[in-house]
Amino acid sequence: MAEHTITSAANPRLKALVGLRRRRRREESGRTLLEGYDELALALGAGVRPRELYICDDLMADPSTQHDVVRAARDTGAEIVRLSRAAFEKVAYREGADGFLAVVPAVGTTPRELTLAEAPLLLIAEGVEKPGNLGAMLRTADAAGVDAVVAADPVTDWGNPNVVRSSKGTVFSVPVATATSQETFDWARERSIRVVAATPAATDLHTDVDLTGSVAIAVGTEKQGLTDAALAAADIHIRIPMSGKANSLNVATSAAIVIYEAVRQRGHSA
Amino acid sequence: MAEHTITSAANPRLKALVGLRRRRRREESGRTLLEGYDELALALGAGVRPRELYICDDLMADPSTQHDVVRAARDTGAEIVRLSRAAFEKVAYREGADGFLAVVPAVGTTPRELTLAEAPLLLIAEGVEKPGNLGAMLRTADAAGVDAVVAADPVTDWGNPNVVRSSKGTVFSVPVATATSQETFDWARERSIRVVAATPAATDLHTDVDLTGSVAIAVGTEKQGLTDAALAAADIHIRIPMSGKANSLNVATSAAIVIYEAVRQRGHSA
Repeated sequence: MAEHTITSAANPRLKALVGLRRRRRREESGRTLLEGYDELALALGAGVRPRELYICDDLMADPSTQHDVVRAARDTGAEIVRLSRAAFEKVAYREGADGFLAVVPAVGTTPRELTLAEAPLLLIAEGVEKPGNLGAMLRTADAAGVDAVVAADPVTDWGNPNVVRSSKGTVFSVPVATATSQETFDWARERSIRVVAATPAATDLHTDVDLTGSVAIAVGTEKQGLTDAALAAADIHIRIPMSGKANSLNVATSAAIVIYEAVRQRGHSA
Repeated sequence: MAEHTITSAANPRLKALVGLRRRRRREESGRTLLEGYDELALALGAGVRPRELYICDDLMADPSTQHDVVRAARDTGAEIVRLSRAAFEKVAYREGADGFLAVVPAVGTTPRELTLAEAPLLLIAEGVEKPGNLGAMLRTADAAGVDAVVAADPVTDWGNPNVVRSSKGTVFSVPVATATSQETFDWARERSIRVVAATPAATDLHTDVDLTGSVAIAVGTEKQGLTDAALAAADIHIRIPMSGKANSLNVATSAAIVIYEAVRQRGHSA
């Protein structure tokens, strides 16, 4: 495809890009934003096909080598648009813009549409609000080889640019799904997936229960934890031992501790 | 002490408060800022004696019950200053100000001045820049019962208001120290503390090594990891298994995973 160049920060296409920061525009268009060279390289490697790629050589750390990603995006059919520095800085949403911003198809399916391996390890995040926590959980899920992450009754959509950013692009490499909490736990039961709910009120420690086989680790919000319905739907409750004064782990940290205990028990070696 | 009331947002005391957001002012004065009811309650419980407490009833979630903390602060000798909403919002530094802002003595000592239990579990964070990561590590250290956290060659000081905030006040409940990297590892050797360095290049998994006894878990920056000098000073290198596409865990997440493996091995029950 031909390359365009936009030098005016008033160009209407830039307004459309900024519009994708709003959830409604993302849902209407089925698209979202992906910013950053590393993140884009990871997404391309995971099979993502960007529709549009906006670049600014002046902002790239190393234009001579980083154009590999521009070529790779073009090969998947992406339209490449060059922006002036002023124009790029208008559409960039993170600090330290590095000259790469893509419009990509929105991610996320329903739990039923997920293709699961035998005896999968899953993460269910119920009601989590903060994009940074969802992004951190995706990074952990990617590293630990978690099969899929399901957002139950999510406050934040997977396409939220701050989820994409804080996930370092792993939202495109880890299968993600969204459903109501009810649908999520119904699905787990139908698929004979054991739901292990992390809650401070549990008796068993996370290290004392069997986390092998088909398992979904469920975490709730930092303030309220899992809902009563989720706790009732769970097969087992676990807690992470806490001996401190504050007694509150970050939710993404809690998820990581339980996920890696599961990895230990399952004898993964990477 | 008598209570003052400040209604003008131009009052010079407010300017002095805002000045404490700067590291130089914190170091010169030996004081730092602590915002938030929960955080202040935790700090008071940990023995912190605030010098000044600025309050705004209009912003409190529940003034009738939350004045318990005002009384507790006054009992330790703190000067109580009432602010108008406009004045408070000028000095508050976090979103969702809740009407509590205290000036407290700066925290942090040197490693040599730490009082250690027998066979302590320690965390050494070398070069970590992001206040949010330091704060998250403190929350984990508090929950896991880590004996102390040492910042080696830190870019961010413990009194940074964003460390205080993201630590949820645990920077006042967990003993913290600061030193150069060299001093830190020299101290560990003198005290016969085994330094376990987390680095992706290690052969041994974190679950395969002995984390009982006197142990300091050492983590470096997200981008560069531990310095060569730190790796050379360590007694053993470990890695967390990673099987994903991005292969990068958040540094605070990595610390939490190794710390909780140590807790498991040490048979803590809380």
